[in-house]
Amino acid sequence: MANIYDSAYDLEKAIRESDEFQGLKQAYETVMADESAKNMFENFRTTQINLQEKQMQGQEISEEEVEQAKQVVELVQQHPDISKLMEEEQRLNVLINDVSKIITKPLEELYGSPEEQ
Amino acid sequence: MANIYDSAYDLEKAIRESDEFQGLKQAYETVMADESAKNMFENFRTTQINLQEKQMQGQEISEEEVEQAKQVVELVQQHPDISKLMEEEQRLNVLINDVSKIITKPLEELYGSPEEQ
Repeated sequence: MANIYDSAYDLEKAIRESDEFQGLKQAYETVMADESAKNMFENFRTTQINLQEKQMQGQEISEEEVEQAKQVVELVQQHPDISKLMEEEQRLNVLINDVSKIITKPLEELYGSPEEQ
Repeated sequence: MANIYDSAYDLEKAIRESDEFQGLKQAYETVMADESAKNMFENFRTTQINLQEKQMQGQEISEEEVEQAKQVVELVQQHPDISKLMEEEQRLNVLINDVSKIITKPLEELYGSPEEQ
């Protein structure tokens, strides 16, 4: 029987060495190396995290905040290095979602169809 | 380079074969085999899912609903087979959380400390 932690560390290594992660890392480092892109991206990230936190806590989000967030997104999308970074994030997200679906399959099978028990 | 999907399937297999998952499966099947325990547990699960969905959508949860949910929890905790199942769920959750922390480590390292870049 394979050990869960060994398998998890193997998977971590495979993710770390993947083209997807390496591409994201490079795109991230490119943005971080440019002071104005870095500030723009961090501003965008802070805005997103704040909105997510509010949403998760069930707090109301004002129209002004939504408008502001939209403007920040539009701004960062026009920056080629940041839009490249967002593309790479999206690519890695797809991978992580796939992985997550695979490893939660036993649980889904158990809980997914109680009627068949 | 290890393939991500191969590693993910290895991990899935390790989870499926683990004492934690097998213990949960057995506890789940015990509850499902007893009609009254099954109904009680499914009622509990439906209540929980409904509350979670409301919370995630930022909908207000009434005091009555909170009170009702508490009563359902108290009821199921008194049932030995269901409280065993909840213990096993908790045990597997700890494992899945550990796994999740391990495999998201590369991302955390990248995004966790932008100031160091």
